[in-house]
Amino acid sequence: MKAMAEPTVKSERLYQGRVVGLRVDTVRLSNGTLASREIVEHPGAVCVVPLDQGKNVLLVRQYRKAAERSLLEVPAGTLEPGEDPVACAHRELEEETGCRAGEMRELVSFYTSPGFCTEVIHAFVARDLTRGRPLEAEDEELEVVSVPLAEAVSLVRRGEIRDAKSIAALLLALDAVPRPGRRRL
Amino acid sequence: MKAMAEPTVKSERLYQGRVVGLRVDTVRLSNGTLASREIVEHPGAVCVVPLDQGKNVLLVRQYRKAAERSLLEVPAGTLEPGEDPVACAHRELEEETGCRAGEMRELVSFYTSPGFCTEVIHAFVARDLTRGRPLEAEDEELEVVSVPLAEAVSLVRRGEIRDAKSIAALLLALDAVPRPGRRRL
Repeated sequence: MKAMAEPTVKSERLYQGRVVGLRVDTVRLSNGTLASREIVEHPGAVCVVPLDQGKNVLLVRQYRKAAERSLLEVPAGTLEPGEDPVACAHRELEEETGCRAGEMRELVSFYTSPGFCTEVIHAFVARDLTRGRPLEAEDEELEVVSVPLAEAVSLVRRGEIRDAKSIAALLLALDAVPRPGRRRL
Repeated sequence: MKAMAEPTVKSERLYQGRVVGLRVDTVRLSNGTLASREIVEHPGAVCVVPLDQGKNVLLVRQYRKAAERSLLEVPAGTLEPGEDPVACAHRELEEETGCRAGEMRELVSFYTSPGFCTEVIHAFVARDLTRGRPLEAEDEELEVVSVPLAEAVSLVRRGEIRDAKSIAALLLALDAVPRPGRRRL
């Protein structure tokens, strides 16, 4: 296996905004040549597959300016500075759906766009849900939708759920929960 | 369902680089208030699950500066201006693995980070592979790895494949191909 690393020779900060930052790094490759890397900095995020006792999953539909369309996604949100991902998952779940979860289990974590972005998303399954009222965020308009997990997975396979974190988390959640049709003998 | 759209009131371009661009849009929400949206612009990309006749999948390991680690991913790459995703999938597959594919089938397409980034990835399964030599890209150092598809999916479930597009594409590909253990009677 080749030695792999890209030591930074120069780093130029171009932007620091509310959510994202941007820098351009000049790196040295193992063959000695220099290359340029545009890096979008992101604090990281969580996403949650909230499952009720009837194996329905709560999804949120919201307008996504970057996509210029509304998308159906699992509840998710950005980590606050220093925030623990589990605490963030509980917070975002309650903010977006009004639910509190008795159980919050991490499935995996993944990079959303490792070619240019530092964002890591921690994906959870939430169970033992207690329903309440969603908290209205100042600049987000959400619609909460409840569908059977199997139907959500069909929406993924038919290309109607078009968000990478939601696709990954729903397919992994399907595998992580006992299926009603498969009794253990 | 709430009316959903976020009309742009003002748009400020901050950066245009080799791969990504950055702008900040001021949008009007349906309740009349203004909100700010940081948008990372990306030309879009493809990713490919290349499957040989023995149901092995070709993966690539490469150092990702944004993650500061090497990651195991499905072959992938950025769309050239005006490029058809299918042509891009063939091109990237050959550049990264040396393989040509007799069949290139689109699974789904998805946004990698719709909260702040325009990137859409078109995910394909490639079959009927003819092996050749990978083309050396000037600023990429890749290692090609062949593993059984079932093993790749285990790596996903164990959290050892940590790239969202690869997770989504591998889990969808598992479903899209006939499984050796499940003969149709």
